[in-house]
Amino acid sequence: MLRFGILGAGRIGNVHARAIASSGRAVVRYIADSMPDAAAILAGSVGAETASVDEIVASPEVDAILIATPTDTHADLIEQAALAGKAILCEKPVSLSVERIRSCLDVVEKAGVPLMIGFHRRYDPNFAVLERRLRSGEIGDPEIITITCRDPSAPPVSYIERSGGLYRDMMIHDFDMARFLLGDEEPVTVHALGGVLTDPAIAKAGDIDTASVQMQTASGKIVVITNSRRATYGHDQRIEVHGSKGLLRAANVHNTTVELANQGGWTQDAIPFSFVERYQPAYTAEIHRFLDFLEKGEAPRASGYDGLMAQKLAEAASESLKSGQVVFIK
Amino acid sequence: MLRFGILGAGRIGNVHARAIASSGRAVVRYIADSMPDAAAILAGSVGAETASVDEIVASPEVDAILIATPTDTHADLIEQAALAGKAILCEKPVSLSVERIRSCLDVVEKAGVPLMIGFHRRYDPNFAVLERRLRSGEIGDPEIITITCRDPSAPPVSYIERSGGLYRDMMIHDFDMARFLLGDEEPVTVHALGGVLTDPAIAKAGDIDTASVQMQTASGKIVVITNSRRATYGHDQRIEVHGSKGLLRAANVHNTTVELANQGGWTQDAIPFSFVERYQPAYTAEIHRFLDFLEKGEAPRASGYDGLMAQKLAEAASESLKSGQVVFIK
Amino acid sequence: MLRFGILGAGRIGNVHARAIASSGRAVVRYIADSMPDAAAILAGSVGAETASVDEIVASPEVDAILIATPTDTHADLIEQAALAGKAILCEKPVSLSVERIRSCLDVVEKAGVPLMIGFHRRYDPNFAVLERRLRSGEIGDPEIITITCRDPSAPPVSYIERSGGLYRDMMIHDFDMARFLLGDEEPVTVHALGGVLTDPAIAKAGDIDTASVQMQTASGKIVVITNSRRATYGHDQRIEVHGSKGLLRAANVHNTTVELANQGGWTQDAIPFSFVERYQPAYTAEIHRFLDFLEKGEAPRASGYDGLMAQKLAEAASESLKSGQVVFIK
Amino acid sequence: MLRFGILGAGRIGNVHARAIASSGRAVVRYIADSMPDAAAILAGSVGAETASVDEIVASPEVDAILIATPTDTHADLIEQAALAGKAILCEKPVSLSVERIRSCLDVVEKAGVPLMIGFHRRYDPNFAVLERRLRSGEIGDPEIITITCRDPSAPPVSYIERSGGLYRDMMIHDFDMARFLLGDEEPVTVHALGGVLTDPAIAKAGDIDTASVQMQTASGKIVVITNSRRATYGHDQRIEVHGSKGLLRAANVHNTTVELANQGGWTQDAIPFSFVERYQPAYTAEIHRFLDFLEKGEAPRASGYDGLMAQKLAEAASESLKSGQVVFIK
Repeated sequence: MLRFGILGAGRIGNVHARAIASSGRAVVRYIADSMPDAAAILAGSVGAETASVDEIVASPEVDAILIATPTDTHADLIEQAALAGKAILCEKPVSLSVERIRSCLDVVEKAGVPLMIGFHRRYDPNFAVLERRLRSGEIGDPEIITITCRDPSAPPVSYIERSGGLYRDMMIHDFDMARFLLGDEEPVTVHALGGVLTDPAIAKAGDIDTASVQMQTASGKIVVITNSRRATYGHDQRIEVHGSKGLLRAANVHNTTVELANQGGWTQDAIPFSFVERYQPAYTAEIHRFLDFLEKGEAPRASGYDGLMAQKLAEAASESLKSGQVVFIK
Repeated sequence: MLRFGILGAGRIGNVHARAIASSGRAVVRYIADSMPDAAAILAGSVGAETASVDEIVASPEVDAILIATPTDTHADLIEQAALAGKAILCEKPVSLSVERIRSCLDVVEKAGVPLMIGFHRRYDPNFAVLERRLRSGEIGDPEIITITCRDPSAPPVSYIERSGGLYRDMMIHDFDMARFLLGDEEPVTVHALGGVLTDPAIAKAGDIDTASVQMQTASGKIVVITNSRRATYGHDQRIEVHGSKGLLRAANVHNTTVELANQGGWTQDAIPFSFVERYQPAYTAEIHRFLDFLEKGEAPRASGYDGLMAQKLAEAASESLKSGQVVFIK
Repeated sequence: MLRFGILGAGRIGNVHARAIASSGRAVVRYIADSMPDAAAILAGSVGAETASVDEIVASPEVDAILIATPTDTHADLIEQAALAGKAILCEKPVSLSVERIRSCLDVVEKAGVPLMIGFHRRYDPNFAVLERRLRSGEIGDPEIITITCRDPSAPPVSYIERSGGLYRDMMIHDFDMARFLLGDEEPVTVHALGGVLTDPAIAKAGDIDTASVQMQTASGKIVVITNSRRATYGHDQRIEVHGSKGLLRAANVHNTTVELANQGGWTQDAIPFSFVERYQPAYTAEIHRFLDFLEKGEAPRASGYDGLMAQKLAEAASESLKSGQVVFIK
Repeated sequence: MLRFGILGAGRIGNVHARAIASSGRAVVRYIADSMPDAAAILAGSVGAETASVDEIVASPEVDAILIATPTDTHADLIEQAALAGKAILCEKPVSLSVERIRSCLDVVEKAGVPLMIGFHRRYDPNFAVLERRLRSGEIGDPEIITITCRDPSAPPVSYIERSGGLYRDMMIHDFDMARFLLGDEEPVTVHALGGVLTDPAIAKAGDIDTASVQMQTASGKIVVITNSRRATYGHDQRIEVHGSKGLLRAANVHNTTVELANQGGWTQDAIPFSFVERYQPAYTAEIHRFLDFLEKGEAPRASGYDGLMAQKLAEAASESLKSGQVVFIK
């Protein structure tokens, strides 16, 4: 069974470690974290050991490196793992800088190691089925893609300050989803709107909490994305594709199928408020797709190139917000 | 345009009068009611005049009689109208006595006048489409029919006392719907359950408020009906047919398509609490089907025979409740 | 009862004439159309007479003028009716030129006659309830408004050529809906995308068939609108408001509540393919709101000013499409 | 961690073994099956060893016995495990004979070992939440309980012949669900209908394929259950409780949230056709509830007594079908 070394024992490192441990196809061998206790607790719960980043990357007992550390370390760690000849699964983004992503991908290419980016939504069973049905031609060509993504609440301001801003931190998933759904075509224009409607502290941190972006491809296909950091009704995650022969959409996942009827109406159960809960099946599937990639040579759903392109769109959106004008993607 | 005389200016007489007035295909000529004021007000609002029952039935200016008087007058009025050569649209039931229905239908048959029974649910656009799709073979043969009918609240006890009981007064519509959906086959066994769960005064009046019936046809098809006099969430009206090739169901009609999402879940707008509001389109369609029947000779959706058969099932259910045993329909 | 003179006996003139005739509160007195047969047939079906535009506007037997003629005649007819002291209900738009609307509204104001604009969606029972609940504070302040409007098929190219383009002809309804939902605030920036994805003939006519617009108010509220001239699944009409305390949305209206389940899944009945069918209740309500406006002095849901403002947004969108840049509303 | 010995490596034994292996709270130590290969394969996949039934029951390395063998062995194996002092999780039913269940439960009671019955639907996250909300009083007292259970296709006739018939084999789950939802009260009358509508071979085997049962408690509460062995649209599993203050229902679980719209309507993804797939979360939860029972002393959701009572209702239904009459539960 394939042996993982996990760098980072935070929330997302935990999600991945457990997904690997219960996959039946791989094991977690080592876990590193700058907080030794966090690494030890997680290691204990999945039958792994703790080690330093350098030890893990160098270890002959590790086949693949899963990078779940803070964003600003991703590119360096990818390069280090690539040079050590390891397969790599890295949380998005590779870097907040498009140039840095480019140089990093060069290193990976020269090293010839497999790299997959953790855009978990591509692996969500609902979205994956929608994409497969879209690709099969069920609704003809996509014409208007609408992506709704709203979080129950904003992360701490301390996190926001170093996040690169909403477009790079949150909407990056939607940029990737847009590209995933568009297939061959890339957006060529980006116009971004944004504002602070939920918490002035976010403005002070130089960021926004409410945003929309519209993009268009060369052939005229349209993508519309809306984000909010504060959806009182849960983690709102929907996609919709209007095509030449019909419409496909993936609705929210509700906690249960239970419905209550009384004078006030007919109330369906709430949707998850935690992204971990919402995307548990996606994280599980992600590990399996990574293993399929390594074992069967199947193309990764999200490659380093996909990481680069999503970042370019996030960059363009940030620039558009600043200038108030449309940005053309070169 | 066909001229109606309406007997009875109560709630249901009002519904019918307005449906006729706005049909564009017929007019209300006369209205009779034991309460002259009620007749006058309704007449005024639909451009009709008031008259006595005898005058209306005898009038050469009346082509069709709509009977919306208390139940115990229906059979006599049908006979009177039939002997006068009028077309007849009579609210259910013809009579609470199966024998009386039989003798009444004999008179109608001899007179050779058209008679249609006001089982309004057969004309509901949702249920009518479901039945048409069922008949077209879309789900093969019906195997299990489930009918849910629940009223927001019970009628006054004074009404219940003279109603013939829940099976004859309320479930009669479901017996008719069951026969409508079954098509060629008739139920041959009836088993009824009932109890008083909402209001002891209903028990004192000798009736029940919560009931279910299951019936079976000779070939083994099953019908299940549940009723309640107290649905706090509105006028719950659903049908479902499990067939050999699929399932067809008609859901409740909601007041609007508006939905609210918040921490408590996702709440669809309520359903109507008034049967008049719920079945307005059905009453409108009923008048058109009656006119189609008279003008184009199309078979009435509900005939006198249908009125008789529904009453037989209500009778059998009442008997089953009393005996606690299964009743076989002869 | 209030007496209407209807100018224009086309499809929309028919819809209004029938809504008036069945309102029980008003009558159609005269109908004018450049095609005398069309006027005569419609007049016959609602108990009206035909007359010329001049005769109707001058007639003392006419209290209100309903204008349902081609767009380029609206402003002149409004002025003519205003000078004759009639109440006016005019189909959108007043004019394709913002300047012309301004001068026309001046005439109306000086004449002191009531004017209401036929933005029928404001009267749709679903959208009206959503707006009322939004105004009541149920979801706090609106933050992101998403409007989806897709037609089953494009009008004839000959119509498109004179329509002013998709933004002025089709999306104008969505601009009005956006303003209706925003309440006090107006959009200050407009960015429009558009393309031809369904029929090259539309490009030859100088128009687009697929479009989106995003707008922002001074306080940061965002509006996103998407349009298509070709929705194979019917007349797709949805609105959604993400607010500070929840989300309100109005879904599509389906033809019936019937659902089929088989191997292929669970299929709900289709939605209407005709806007007349889809918005029948809205047109009926529109007449009642106009009568409420005249009789009770209730503010019209859509005033001449609303007509002006929607046109300004359509203008800005057209300009944005041409320049590829963001347009600021002055 | 608690160590399981699993008796039976068939489909359901597999489901349980995997649920235990991935629970993180228990391990599978041994597996026995009359087909050694089946036992070996399953053992290999969950890190267990094979052994004989006698070895497993006697082993000091086994804390709990999971019985997933053919029905006619359950009672004997329960007794054997009880006498060996093991905790027991036994698939339904304990026995097809009410008397045999009684004597078996006596042995368990004397041995003082924990016993839980595998009525997996009680552990389904949707049904469990519905029951909890019902118990919390959200809709007041239950008045009408409707349980819909339909399988995609019948098991082999060879299985049906030894199954005890539809009521004991299939509807037994619904009898248990009815009791679960009723809470304190037990049904006192049972009337069963049944027929063969899908396959004459089932009639030859002495069984039915389409059935309904209605039951009533002493206070008048009503339960209606419908079953079919052939639902072309999947594993239809719904429950609905009409209460004095509202209605609670649990709808079907669909494969994904994806919906397609085209001319034919709006099609939601299908529901599972396999009960293993449908109830995977239920089987997982079942293991956790069993462990909670053992570790925290929480009452098992389904006890031996519940197994006995469900069997009594199945017995009564079989008797009612045979006699065509109502059966009173003593």
